[in-house]
Amino acid sequence: MTAEDVEPGTVRPGGRTARVRTAVLRAAGDTLAEQGLAGLDLAEIARRAGVGRTTVYRRWGTVTGLVADLLTDMAEQSLPRTETGSLLGDLQANARLVRRTLADARQGALFKAVIAAATGEPRTAEALRRFYEIRVAEWAPCVQQAVDRGELPADTDSHEVIRAVSAPLYYRLLTGGDPPDETAADRAAEAAAAAARAGVFVRTRQRRPAR
Amino acid sequence: MTAEDVEPGTVRPGGRTARVRTAVLRAAGDTLAEQGLAGLDLAEIARRAGVGRTTVYRRWGTVTGLVADLLTDMAEQSLPRTETGSLLGDLQANARLVRRTLADARQGALFKAVIAAATGEPRTAEALRRFYEIRVAEWAPCVQQAVDRGELPADTDSHEVIRAVSAPLYYRLLTGGDPPDETAADRAAEAAAAAARAGVFVRTRQRRPAR
Repeated sequence: MTAEDVEPGTVRPGGRTARVRTAVLRAAGDTLAEQGLAGLDLAEIARRAGVGRTTVYRRWGTVTGLVADLLTDMAEQSLPRTETGSLLGDLQANARLVRRTLADARQGALFKAVIAAATGEPRTAEALRRFYEIRVAEWAPCVQQAVDRGELPADTDSHEVIRAVSAPLYYRLLTGGDPPDETAADRAAEAAAAAARAGVFVRTRQRRPAR
Repeated sequence: MTAEDVEPGTVRPGGRTARVRTAVLRAAGDTLAEQGLAGLDLAEIARRAGVGRTTVYRRWGTVTGLVADLLTDMAEQSLPRTETGSLLGDLQANARLVRRTLADARQGALFKAVIAAATGEPRTAEALRRFYEIRVAEWAPCVQQAVDRGELPADTDSHEVIRAVSAPLYYRLLTGGDPPDETAADRAAEAAAAAARAGVFVRTRQRRPAR
């Protein structure tokens, strides 16, 4: 029996289990950002988080399990979507948010580390895929609103438009080394908006043959 | 003195040094594709390539040096650019080439491995940046030709247009796990073409403020 069981009035939301998870995931994120996947060791994470080693092994089992849980936690902690009233404004807000995240020293390093980890481990790749699915779904309504306002063709694939905003920013980070700047963010938003207006992301559209 | 020095008539272009490099880089690429960066060990690469360990240590020094040389070699081995006579046709040819590369079992795994390696090692990131700079420069002329034909606004940044074609394909591979399909390739080409026509990649353009 834990303290939470015997003293219901003192139970905080989540209680000890949630506090342990927060401390362990914070330590895991810091370690990934500082040292990458190679630095991630359950015993060391337990020490850094000030949590019993047995607790960490029992709850997360492996480094892969820990990274997957970290991604679940990251997906839950996203910021609310900005609504500006125009497609370009909304996509620009999204692009700038992605850019700030990737340009942030800890966050940028953490994203690079989990993407690198996913290249070698299918379970991490699946957790990463779910993470982006959630993030994309949070912003997709701004594209649907633009369809409803008549700014975009009907049956535009809203998720693909949001992915198109992120893609050049991640591409730049992962192939060029430098985090994207604000000009790159604005251009990513404008490119996605222009392509969406041209009907490139319409779902049922016939593909044009290459000439 | 080597055999090449005493018998000039028998010297093949590159000779033994080039053959050693080819064997070592092939072994390094195979190992990266199969096991990722963690599997890369100079002594093991020497064994796999059938080359003396001392030669490998003397010539490449470190795993980082070997990966950088592999990227230099990959940049030299690209396929010639396709010329179709239209911007969309050219960008589609580029997108399909990138897609085939990323969907190929060995090549796709190799690209994932070097991108992952670059996240943790600045020298690898710099070698990767140079690799993409060379690849992008090979295809950029098709954008300049479209400008000359009047298909695109003057002062369009041709390199940015080519990067915009690759970006969604790499983004999909690295965040979703699945290699992109041909529909994704064609959409990437169409999106880049539409954005370029709308003037998004014009260099001197004033950024529109977010509304």
